[in-house]
Amino acid sequence: MTEFTKTEKNSLKRLPKRGHYDRATIYRILDEALICHVGFVEREQPYVIPINFARIEDRIVLHGAKASRLLKHIEAGYPVCVEVTVVDGLVLARSVFHHSINYRSVVLFGKGRPVEGEQEKLSALKAITEHLIPGRWQEARLPNRKELNATRVVSIKIDEASAKVRVGPPLDEQEDYTLPVWAGVLPLQEQALSPIRDELLPKNVPVPEYISQYSRTRE
Amino acid sequence: MTEFTKTEKNSLKRLPKRGHYDRATIYRILDEALICHVGFVEREQPYVIPINFARIEDRIVLHGAKASRLLKHIEAGYPVCVEVTVVDGLVLARSVFHHSINYRSVVLFGKGRPVEGEQEKLSALKAITEHLIPGRWQEARLPNRKELNATRVVSIKIDEASAKVRVGPPLDEQEDYTLPVWAGVLPLQEQALSPIRDELLPKNVPVPEYISQYSRTRE
Repeated sequence: MTEFTKTEKNSLKRLPKRGHYDRATIYRILDEALICHVGFVEREQPYVIPINFARIEDRIVLHGAKASRLLKHIEAGYPVCVEVTVVDGLVLARSVFHHSINYRSVVLFGKGRPVEGEQEKLSALKAITEHLIPGRWQEARLPNRKELNATRVVSIKIDEASAKVRVGPPLDEQEDYTLPVWAGVLPLQEQALSPIRDELLPKNVPVPEYISQYSRTRE
Repeated sequence: MTEFTKTEKNSLKRLPKRGHYDRATIYRILDEALICHVGFVEREQPYVIPINFARIEDRIVLHGAKASRLLKHIEAGYPVCVEVTVVDGLVLARSVFHHSINYRSVVLFGKGRPVEGEQEKLSALKAITEHLIPGRWQEARLPNRKELNATRVVSIKIDEASAKVRVGPPLDEQEDYTLPVWAGVLPLQEQALSPIRDELLPKNVPVPEYISQYSRTRE
């Protein structure tokens, strides 16, 4: 199934033409976003926590310390909402009213379960590491038994999801097009600056290409 | 009062040394973040929605279409959680286990109310516009009565808040420092690329300095 079903929960009410329900669009945005924002409820109080993540097929995996309150809550199976947003630019219209942001966001709903088998845990940690820095898993020292035991991993099956995307130039009121106000798009992009070597790193260890060429853009 | 009180809701359980409760730190992060992630609960289901915003003193203001489900929910006074995160870099340790992200995040809790008076509404819209693009309010065509009426504005008093900040190099296990694995920090920054003029903009309108010099960094 290449489309998520539209439901009361995931349907866009406002500006439905910006909505996307196909897995290809949704998964591409999830794979590009650096971190996600996880929403959960405890005693009727909403919480939102930022955390890094990865997508494996139709699941989101998260990891953290054994004691993590967030992860314990998720693996208990309570409903969670995961949101990611990639900002692509600021949209400057002639009028304040028509200012906007070009962005790609995903909101998804699901329930979690613990990941406890050693192989499944390692696969999740590999996916999370490679989501952040493709190429890193092959080079860094892999987790040992003690580290694996100190790490909690949870998996959230994506039950419902939608993406929201805005692209393109500003749209102004007809009578505003004659105003001498600069209008257009200011593209924004998460960019890597020069890598900072750890002071304790021997000088003969070169910067790997996956660092010197790092980019979040995914095609 | 320059510090938020530590409560069950806003206290950091894990890595408490990364926690900050002073308003100066919290407000600086809020002012730098481009968008926020608003968590709310409807029929026991958590939702997280990305939206642009501004801080005015100890309040968060949001705006959107009159019909916005999110804004109607917030102005009704249900508890909400607002989260922002600025990512500063990827932290590459010798071991997978000690990889991390340098970031500054804020999680805050409060309740909303509608903003309906014309002056207060305009102040909120000015703050939101200037949060996104400082200098823009003075230049763009300001909202007219019809646009104001089509816009819903809500204000959330910040009742509790905390910031979480990680800075600095990776910390590895003692025995891993001899490994020939590149380690350090890859700084990341939301950067502006070249502005794209709207095709319908007369050629004699120059790019304003607040666009050509745009930066998210706040001091």
